[in-house]
Amino acid sequence: MLLELAAAGADVAVHYRTSEEAAAETAADARDHGVEATTVEGDVTEPDAVDSLFSDCESELGDVDILVNAVGPLPQGRWDELSLDEWKTAVEGCLYSTYLCSQRALLSMRAAGWGRIINFGVADARDDRAVPMNFPYFAAKKAVLQFTRTLAYDTQDDEITVNAVSPFAVENTVVDVSEFPRGRAATFEDVAAPILFFCSDAAAYISGQNVAIDGGRLQEA
Amino acid sequence: MLLELAAAGADVAVHYRTSEEAAAETAADARDHGVEATTVEGDVTEPDAVDSLFSDCESELGDVDILVNAVGPLPQGRWDELSLDEWKTAVEGCLYSTYLCSQRALLSMRAAGWGRIINFGVADARDDRAVPMNFPYFAAKKAVLQFTRTLAYDTQDDEITVNAVSPFAVENTVVDVSEFPRGRAATFEDVAAPILFFCSDAAAYISGQNVAIDGGRLQEA
Amino acid sequence: MLLELAAAGADVAVHYRTSEEAAAETAADARDHGVEATTVEGDVTEPDAVDSLFSDCESELGDVDILVNAVGPLPQGRWDELSLDEWKTAVEGCLYSTYLCSQRALLSMRAAGWGRIINFGVADARDDRAVPMNFPYFAAKKAVLQFTRTLAYDTQDDEITVNAVSPFAVENTVVDVSEFPRGRAATFEDVAAPILFFCSDAAAYISGQNVAIDGGRLQEA
Amino acid sequence: MLLELAAAGADVAVHYRTSEEAAAETAADARDHGVEATTVEGDVTEPDAVDSLFSDCESELGDVDILVNAVGPLPQGRWDELSLDEWKTAVEGCLYSTYLCSQRALLSMRAAGWGRIINFGVADARDDRAVPMNFPYFAAKKAVLQFTRTLAYDTQDDEITVNAVSPFAVENTVVDVSEFPRGRAATFEDVAAPILFFCSDAAAYISGQNVAIDGGRLQEA
Repeated sequence: MLLELAAAGADVAVHYRTSEEAAAETAADARDHGVEATTVEGDVTEPDAVDSLFSDCESELGDVDILVNAVGPLPQGRWDELSLDEWKTAVEGCLYSTYLCSQRALLSMRAAGWGRIINFGVADARDDRAVPMNFPYFAAKKAVLQFTRTLAYDTQDDEITVNAVSPFAVENTVVDVSEFPRGRAATFEDVAAPILFFCSDAAAYISGQNVAIDGGRLQEA
Repeated sequence: MLLELAAAGADVAVHYRTSEEAAAETAADARDHGVEATTVEGDVTEPDAVDSLFSDCESELGDVDILVNAVGPLPQGRWDELSLDEWKTAVEGCLYSTYLCSQRALLSMRAAGWGRIINFGVADARDDRAVPMNFPYFAAKKAVLQFTRTLAYDTQDDEITVNAVSPFAVENTVVDVSEFPRGRAATFEDVAAPILFFCSDAAAYISGQNVAIDGGRLQEA
Repeated sequence: MLLELAAAGADVAVHYRTSEEAAAETAADARDHGVEATTVEGDVTEPDAVDSLFSDCESELGDVDILVNAVGPLPQGRWDELSLDEWKTAVEGCLYSTYLCSQRALLSMRAAGWGRIINFGVADARDDRAVPMNFPYFAAKKAVLQFTRTLAYDTQDDEITVNAVSPFAVENTVVDVSEFPRGRAATFEDVAAPILFFCSDAAAYISGQNVAIDGGRLQEA
Repeated sequence: MLLELAAAGADVAVHYRTSEEAAAETAADARDHGVEATTVEGDVTEPDAVDSLFSDCESELGDVDILVNAVGPLPQGRWDELSLDEWKTAVEGCLYSTYLCSQRALLSMRAAGWGRIINFGVADARDDRAVPMNFPYFAAKKAVLQFTRTLAYDTQDDEITVNAVSPFAVENTVVDVSEFPRGRAATFEDVAAPILFFCSDAAAYISGQNVAIDGGRLQEA
């Protein structure tokens, strides 16, 4: 997804926790599009780490004007098979990272008078469904979507928009997709499309919205 | 909004009930973009009228592959000041027109193996709000959004997508917009942007979605 | 359901369109609980008929202080197999009847300074689901639920509450209930329970709410 | 609220963290209704503490067949004025306590073949609102409501129901209630009413539901 942003001309910082090599490769690929690219490391569920990660990023590439909150650990299992630590992993990784990074990014966006925040939700998270499998992940993603609306409300008079994209399964999934719409998962390009749209100037008056990328895979009543 | 579709290369048919002249002008403006354009007349709440309107359109321009359901009469008043006839005007104009035109358009879209339906909702219609003012209009638009998801479900294995755009107030509004995000209503370009996005090939795996165009004007709890 | 209200001491008027005999029997059964009971006839989708029906009721039993909007024709079929007339039957029977009867009943409730309106929704109607089967019925019931919140908002400073009960299938259903929670449909007593609760003085501060009676039969994500 | 359950004949265990004296008084008041009552202490966000708290309770009063999850710390402030620790306090206190206690209580309820779980939500938490004030609390309560539906789904074939009650402000509130419906907050009796209803046998087929107790105080569009 990030390479599509680079292809569209954005300098990019690739965040990683442990996969330094993969991040470096992605940054190199981004540079092939003629933009600046760097990697930043840190635990995005810790306020201090978030702050220093943004400072690194700013000293290398300048102000952050686009933030994509894509971190989302997914502990797999029914709600009552997951331990409290796994609940915390899901909630802290999805929700607190989005809160801490958004709060930090808004500082430069407000100063610059322009910004775009894109949060990753999950398809189906908005509805009032029972979700026995992976409950803490779905609950955390639902909170991310509610937070998206809250941030949009708070920035409604700035040239800043905050929106969400919600894939269900993406091309690298291990789930069986044969029953999915058109027999396939979403491609990375499918997911990148609404991100590029929300970042465009044409979408300057669209904020607080969520677009699922699931081919219309909706539950029947 | 329609001119933006023409500018993007789409032949267009402009529908009207009574404003023949305005429709003809829009069609002429569309032709300035180098596309074919025609006007079609008819009552889109009547099955036979819808059928002949589509037939006219097909004989002039060929198969319908994009349908924009924008008809939406708005009887103004509190729910208990509006007459039953005004309730009917809102529900029939918003909901039945969308149902009849979509049903007819799907015939050619399914035959052609490609299609895009865009329905007009209204910002705020999805939430569980009390809406004493203009209730029948909001209820009908909410039904249109639920219908959008139903159509998306039904076409999930076709190369057809069905999505919605939901402005609150647009530039020709008479409402006071000074308290709106950035002190303004949505422009026609603001509304056209997600329509063009949903019609693009990049959005082929996005269906059943609704994008409000209200600058993040969300009710605070 | 109505007999439970009679058993709780309420005088009742049984409405019918064509089943005069059945209505008379129900009224007789109600009288066995020691309350007054009458039958009233009329088309509740027509303003004049609604008015005269309420007048008959008032002259026989006195002011209406409890209104149960239970009319809900259910044309069966996929959205695209139902005719426009069947769409109208669903929308007019469910939504307009609720609007006309509530508007009329509020006159005496406001005068009396006490009132309870109970609307029938349908389980699952509130969620953002695709509903290809019986779409107009579900859309109309969803509008009834939104109307319930609107009426609750409008009466928030009166001693009037407006709530909804939403069964899925009730004991006289023809659907196969073997996969339903506990292998059964809701009984009439199951449905009467929240109605009696909402009508009680203990629930005087509860308004705009909807209780589904479906045994927790919720769609899994 | 708990005294109403005692008045209805339920033995009760009063949970506390620090207010031992207040808990003891409540237990004494409960005993005045002729039921057994005890107090239990413990941190309900820690699995081991929850387990020993339930064991204490069981050895004093027997199996737990009704669980009321009422713990809900409310750190006050805008989302960006609250520290990460305050976010954690809200999420862990509201959501994890509900998860841990429900998981533990279901063991005895399933063994006994009867049970009632009542979760405390908050009025307005279900809607897609922007909530800048006290955001983590609202997000956690929304997760509690989604968890309520998940538990209801999981127990749909048992004689167990799981429902929620959602007050906005209760009689001991410090908020100005002059603009509230009927110029007042909910009383403890108002909140107890739906709890008693959900615990009754009449409500055996009602599960996964949420009743707000806010007098119809709904946001207008």
